[in-house]
This record gives sequence, C-alpha cells and structure tokens, in this order.
Amino acid sequence: MPPESIGQVTTQFFNIPTAITLESGGTLKHTIIAYETYGSLNSDKSNAILICHALSGDAHVAGYHENAAKPGWWEIMVGPGKPIDTDRFFVICSNIIGSCMGSSGPSSINPATEEPYALTFPLVTVGDMVKAQKQLVDFLEIPKLLSVIGGSIGGMQTLEWSVRYPEMVFSAVPLATTLRHSALGIAFNEVARQSIMADPNWNNGNYYAAKKPDLGLAVARMIGHITYLSDESMRNKFGRRLQNKTDFSFNFDADFQVESYLRYQGSKFVNRFDANSFLYITKAADYFDMTLTQKDGTPSFSGAKAKYLVVSFTSDWLYPTRKSKAMVKLMKKHEIDVSFCEIEAQWGHDAFLLPNDRLSSLLKGFLERMASEFTGVS
Amino acid sequence: MPPESIGQVTTQFFNIPTAITLESGGTLKHTIIAYETYGSLNSDKSNAILICHALSGDAHVAGYHENAAKPGWWEIMVGPGKPIDTDRFFVICSNIIGSCMGSSGPSSINPATEEPYALTFPLVTVGDMVKAQKQLVDFLEIPKLLSVIGGSIGGMQTLEWSVRYPEMVFSAVPLATTLRHSALGIAFNEVARQSIMADPNWNNGNYYAAKKPDLGLAVARMIGHITYLSDESMRNKFGRRLQNKTDFSFNFDADFQVESYLRYQGSKFVNRFDANSFLYITKAADYFDMTLTQKDGTPSFSGAKAKYLVVSFTSDWLYPTRKSKAMVKLMKKHEIDVSFCEIEAQWGHDAFLLPNDRLSSLLKGFLERMASEFTGVS
Repeated sequence: MPPESIGQVTTQFFNIPTAITLESGGTLKHTIIAYETYGSLNSDKSNAILICHALSGDAHVAGYHENAAKPGWWEIMVGPGKPIDTDRFFVICSNIIGSCMGSSGPSSINPATEEPYALTFPLVTVGDMVKAQKQLVDFLEIPKLLSVIGGSIGGMQTLEWSVRYPEMVFSAVPLATTLRHSALGIAFNEVARQSIMADPNWNNGNYYAAKKPDLGLAVARMIGHITYLSDESMRNKFGRRLQNKTDFSFNFDADFQVESYLRYQGSKFVNRFDANSFLYITKAADYFDMTLTQKDGTPSFSGAKAKYLVVSFTSDWLYPTRKSKAMVKLMKKHEIDVSFCEIEAQWGHDAFLLPNDRLSSLLKGFLERMASEFTGVS
Repeated sequence: MPPESIGQVTTQFFNIPTAITLESGGTLKHTIIAYETYGSLNSDKSNAILICHALSGDAHVAGYHENAAKPGWWEIMVGPGKPIDTDRFFVICSNIIGSCMGSSGPSSINPATEEPYALTFPLVTVGDMVKAQKQLVDFLEIPKLLSVIGGSIGGMQTLEWSVRYPEMVFSAVPLATTLRHSALGIAFNEVARQSIMADPNWNNGNYYAAKKPDLGLAVARMIGHITYLSDESMRNKFGRRLQNKTDFSFNFDADFQVESYLRYQGSKFVNRFDANSFLYITKAADYFDMTLTQKDGTPSFSGAKAKYLVVSFTSDWLYPTRKSKAMVKLMKKHEIDVSFCEIEAQWGHDAFLLPNDRLSSLLKGFLERMASEFTGVS
C-alpha cells in the first residue's frame, strides 16, 4: 500500500428498511446497498461528498481491500491530500442497484424464493438508482451533500441527484456524460445486449446454477471498449502494430495489438461482472433523458439549486463535448451557476478515469471553493 | 421492371483455368468467379468499366434477375442513361473470392473432398481478390479497363487494381475508402468476428450440414450497421424515437426505433450471407495496407498510371475524409493525376450506395472525360 493511499477499507452493507417504488411501477421489497466511506464527517456535516460510479464500477472507489493487490477504481483522485481529499472530506461511494457488486441486482438472492432474481428483478432507471442512494445518505444522517461527483453513467446519477433532491445537493460535477443517450449510444448498448442474449448459456437470464454466458458478455464488453477508446485513442495506443509477430497469421488469430487488447478486456471482464447486470444498467442508461420534463410537468432543471462543474474530454466520442455544451446551455437557461471545462485528453471516454493534471486541479479547486461557500441546509 | 433499368440479367460463371498462388503462400486450385456484364464491348475495347463491390455485395450490380422483385445493388448508378451508362459502356461486376455469392469461398464445395471448404479455404487478401478478377478480365479479352470503380472494400480493390496492374487501368474511382484499415476499423471487424466465433453453432467453421451461427452473425451485422450509419445519421434517422410505443417497455424488448432497425438488419442478413465469408472478407480488409511498399521494394503508387477520382462523404466516420485526403496526398507525391471531392451527405459510410445527385454528376462527368482521353494499351 503506497503511503498516499487511504489504506485498508472494507465494504459495508445497508438494508433499506422500506420497499422502493420504481419508475417502471414495480416494487423492490428488499434492497441492499453496498457502500464504502472514507475520511470523517465533520460536526456540522458540511464535508460529505458522494461519488457515483459508471457501468461496471463498484463502491470501492479508493484504498485497498484486505489482501488486495490493486486499489479502488479512482485511487488517483480519492485519498489523503488528493483532489478529493479524504483528510478534509467525508467521501461516500455506493454500488448502484441493478449491479452485481454487492447491491441488489438480478444476481442477488430473492428472499421470497431463495433463488437468484434473474430477470424477475425489476428494471431500474437512473432515477431509481439515485432514489436508493438517497436512502443511504439519509441513513448516514447527512442532510446536504457538499458535492455529488460522477463520470459517464455516474454523471447521469449526478445530474439526477441535483434535480430530484435539489435541497440535498450543494454542488454537482457531471464528468464525461450527457443529458440523454443518443441513438448511437443506444445502438452500441443494444448490440452489446443482443450479444449477451444470443449466447445460449444466457437462457433467458437463468444461468446462475449453470454455465454463464461468458462468450456473449465478452463480446458485449469488447463493444463497450471500442466506445470508451475512440478512433484517435486507438490510433495512438495501437495503430496497426502487430501482436508478437512479424507478419500476418493468415488465420483468425489476433494479428493486431488492438485485437489482442479487446480479447483480453472481454475475457477479463467475465470473471468479475454479471451478464444480467450488464443488460439492466445499459438499459437504464438508454432510458435516461434529462431533457424531458419531470413527472409533475416542470422542466428538469427548473428547481435545481446546485452549483455545477461540467467537464468533457476532447477525444470522448461516446459523450462528446457538444453533449456537455447542450447540458450547460440548458442549465444557463434556468439561470444555474455552472462552470464548464473541456479537457484536452487523448484517451477517449475513459479519460475521466485516467491520471490527468488538469482534471485533478480543476476538481481540487472546485471542491475548495464549494467548501468555503457551503451554506448548509436551506 | 422500370423502363430505365437495363432489364433482365443473369449471372455467369468463369472457371479460372489455372491455380492461383495467394499472398498467404497458399494455393487455390479451383476458382470460380461469378460475374455479370451489362452493355456491349466496343470494337477497340475502350469502354470497359469494372465495378468492385463491398463486403456483402455481389456480381449483381444492376438490372433484374428472373422473377426478382428487387434490382441489383447499384441500380441507381448503372443502367441506360445512368451515370455509369450501359448504352455507352461495357460494365463488368464480379463477386470477390472469399464471398458466398457465387465465387469460390469457404461455403463452396471443395472438388477434392466434395465437402464445403469451411476453414480449409485459404485466407485471401484484397490483392488476391484482384488477382482473381484479373483472370476474368483477361478471359473477356479486355487489355485495358477504361475505369475501375468501387466503394468501401470495393474501393480497396480499386486502389489495388491500379497499383498491381497499372497498364490495365486507365482510370480509377475509389469511393468512401482508405489506404489502410485504422485500429478502429480493425476493432469493429474483430468484435464482429468474435461474435460469430462465440456462437456455438459456428463450430470452428463446420456448420454447413447443421445449424448455422445465425445469432452470432446477426450481432456481427448489427456492429457493421453502426459503423455504416454514424452518430449524425443515426440522430437524423432515429433520434430517441420509440418503436410503436408511448412509453418504455421496462423489459429487454426493442424500445427505440434504432434498436428495431438493428435487430431487423441483423436477422435479415443471416438469410443471405455466410458467416465464414464474413470472417474472411473482414480479415482481408484488416490486412489491406496500401501505404506499405510493394513486394519488390517500390512504394505502392510509384508505378501507378491511372487517373484517379477520389470521393469521400462528410458523415462517413468509418473512412472519414481525412483518410481520402491522405490518399490524395500520397498520390500527389507520386505526381499522379488525381481529383478529389468530399460530398456533403448525412447517411454515413452508406452514402455511396444511396441516391446522391452530386455523386451521380461527378461520376458521369469523370467517365465522359476519361472516355474522351482513353489512350488504349500503352
């Protein structure tokens, strides 16, 4: 464990005491939320930051689990003296519902049947994920979050938080995200889902006692990785370089490095992620649309009170800068306090997860300003 | 049959009388080429145009097969009075080797075993495809083609023709293509191949007497369609419009029109295309690299004599305009006569197949000029 890490952490579990009514009209009776916290909540509860993770992420954002060789997924950003400074802030990260990383999802055991839910688990939206997170924040007795921060689908949750619970969100940092999924985003997700559902082992979602749809899930993940990387970043990272070869194989082995990379990413993913959760979370992303009016007829951002920092990355083609600009435009229409920054980065959509001095200093500066401006519960 | 069509046509078959040595070092002993011709070869053989098709195309470029409701794949461009005017030109189109549309490929019967080749069919390159086409052109006793024209992988063949047989190509029109496949292009093809190979019915290519890998091939085709359409064209064509619904299904049905479109394209494709051929042709596209020097050490375009018309389309993200510009730059370095045009079109890579007045008039004008300048065999 490097000295600049928060060190050893453990995942905790919170049982939501009441049933959750979902946007689909369905109900989730028993909901478990896996979460981790870092640092200490101060006496006036003014230093809590919620981090929302992306598709395949989990509650383990920083530090090390016991005996683990690798730290949490945003170790570069969260820790003592880091941009999201755990010496100063109380950081919370929870696994989204629908996932398979400790919170309730299709691979969880349904207490009513003592079998995995599989597809009997109800479809959840980004709004439902946030509704469940809110129960956790209430349980932690935090009336107002200093900030909600997240990238990609985590950015969707961040936007949702600020609109759904405006009194509880002092600031919000949606990174590399969008107000709504484009046709292209839906198309990629749909093809990935079709790949899973085409695997005979998927068996309409009932595979928990049998062979898993690993091949279909691997292809789905490869499709995802294409969208995370972008044309430019693939050119920089791989070009047409061959994999351990001086000439073509003239068979269907991986000739090019980019092929080996994708195969490796696909095969690695199936060991840690559930195929049904992939279906559920991508569908939630597709449904997400913050340009619509709320259920009560008011426009999405009309009641938002958070101060926003919106960040996009130049080489992100999944949620390109123009998506963030549309977001900023809509916020400005509602006279919202919003800062926007497009960061030069060559690694595509994944850029928000990778070391980037500009992002680090931007986040650090924004959180310092927010901490000094925090007004408490209004 | 509309009056402006060339009318009824039939596919012909040519048995290449000698074995073909392939770039892989392998040999193809028995090669059949499926082809069609339209119009008449004039007395000085100065009006022959070869059209090269893309991945899933065939020799049937125009007119109607007996009892067919639909015409050939480029009916809008080829016919009496059309830009590639069959009243004036003798048009040839042949199916590429490796395909499944009449020419020899993995689904063909190997005369030595009387079984389908499957993966015993040797891998072929774009160079090999052109080498086989050249046998056909020789058989038709055409010493020099007025023009070779093709889009996408057909454009690769067009470039290959002009470099490999410079004395036989008076002009060349590579449309919506590239000097070499990018890492992104390889990545999309590889994920599509993985989808086919993940289908248990694929069975290492041996499925001709059993169930076909339809599900894997359908997903592969869906991936292809994403690349043919582009972000912009999907936004224009589908946006987030729902499919016959007023609200979300909250299950894994196709909610959005773009999902239905992709599912339809996938399921339609498996009825007409062979999964192994998909593997072979995408691999040939990945191997294609016209920036390399030729086998004898000379740069690719150093011996080219054709006059080129290079065309790209604004919304093509698979082979974007900068790819065509790189091609033009390399040609100019070799003092080649080249015209370049970027055409405003919103339909992505598929634009070259769709009605476009700009493309029609450009092709018509170029071919008229070439016909007047044709110098015969030098």
